[in-house]
Amino acid sequence: MTLDPLPETDLTRHRRLRDQGSLDRADLNAILDAGFVCHLGVVIEGRPLVVPTVYGRDDQELYLHGSVASRSLSGGVPVCVTVTHVDGLVLARSVFEHGVNYRSAMIHGEARKVTDPEEKLAGLRRLTDHATPGQWSYARSPSRKELAATTLLALSLEEASVKIRSGPPDDGDGPDAGLGLWAGTLPLTSVWGAPVTDPVLPGETPVPEHIARREGTRYA
Amino acid sequence: MTLDPLPETDLTRHRRLRDQGSLDRADLNAILDAGFVCHLGVVIEGRPLVVPTVYGRDDQELYLHGSVASRSLSGGVPVCVTVTHVDGLVLARSVFEHGVNYRSAMIHGEARKVTDPEEKLAGLRRLTDHATPGQWSYARSPSRKELAATTLLALSLEEASVKIRSGPPDDGDGPDAGLGLWAGTLPLTSVWGAPVTDPVLPGETPVPEHIARREGTRYA
Repeated sequence: MTLDPLPETDLTRHRRLRDQGSLDRADLNAILDAGFVCHLGVVIEGRPLVVPTVYGRDDQELYLHGSVASRSLSGGVPVCVTVTHVDGLVLARSVFEHGVNYRSAMIHGEARKVTDPEEKLAGLRRLTDHATPGQWSYARSPSRKELAATTLLALSLEEASVKIRSGPPDDGDGPDAGLGLWAGTLPLTSVWGAPVTDPVLPGETPVPEHIARREGTRYA
Repeated sequence: MTLDPLPETDLTRHRRLRDQGSLDRADLNAILDAGFVCHLGVVIEGRPLVVPTVYGRDDQELYLHGSVASRSLSGGVPVCVTVTHVDGLVLARSVFEHGVNYRSAMIHGEARKVTDPEEKLAGLRRLTDHATPGQWSYARSPSRKELAATTLLALSLEEASVKIRSGPPDDGDGPDAGLGLWAGTLPLTSVWGAPVTDPVLPGETPVPEHIARREGTRYA
């Protein structure tokens, strides 16, 4: 499948480190699918507020959720959602060339509040199954009251930018290469652990297969 | 050592999920020390921008750095810096009670640009040794030109808030406990991998001890 490239706009144009920028929508989708926690930025009374929150997506939109009481989930205001995976440290010969290997996606837009109950359920399903595939059909679905107490925002994936840095430090071909110092990267890996059963649960309740099979698999 | 509690202000007061809020400055420091990448939020022409960047700290201030060309590092404007560690998924009986175990710190203020060369060097040292303890004295220090090309911001740690969630789901004592569903948490662990030597490096260059010893240790 070929995806349309990400459009270059005033907000998504890569001003700096252009070699780390990507306009490939498949890169965007891969970064979003690798994680489930984003940092949502909004402006409250002229000041920035950056809140970690969970997300899911379909092909067109990102879904964000939280309490209806949350200040950061009001809808109809400009937001910036950033998802970052840290892959390791870039340890160069010089302090100046030090950096981080990472994959990061940034999405700009005005999120809309999802109010239609059917659409809200569908969005929450995306969100739940994004973090834990298979969990929506396993757990008890939201009641009408719970649904009303949940804010779901949808944010178009149209205006987005991606930055990726990987590989060794950049000063291997410069004068510092003669310093005789070690240089390279120190990778960081995240792994799902063994499920921890709620201590109040009766002992015979089995860990469902869709959760048990994640143990030991890599995250992000 | 006893630390003063974090002050409750309009920005740091925990409006929601108050049981997850902490005013303990030791919690703030522990969260900051466990990571090295934050999400920096600024307001650019009325819109939020959330940028991942590295940081270090001392007892009073957080240090953030980037290129002088970066839009997000202008200094003298309100910023919000958020550091989040995701510890795992909270898998409850009901979708509504699902959540994330995490530790998150949020710092508000107006960052100041560090211009004094000595203070800048000291701040960059904090930053470098925060991500890789011991690396400042191992790698080549910044030249005057490199120092001039680096923006360092300092942000007071005075106005900050902390949220922590840990432990099993909250619906073990409600009516959903009778559904017979498994519930618990799925922990996420990040670990430093084996150092990857820059392929252009002569083979005899040893991995320095301060880097080699991190392999297999836990991150965040």
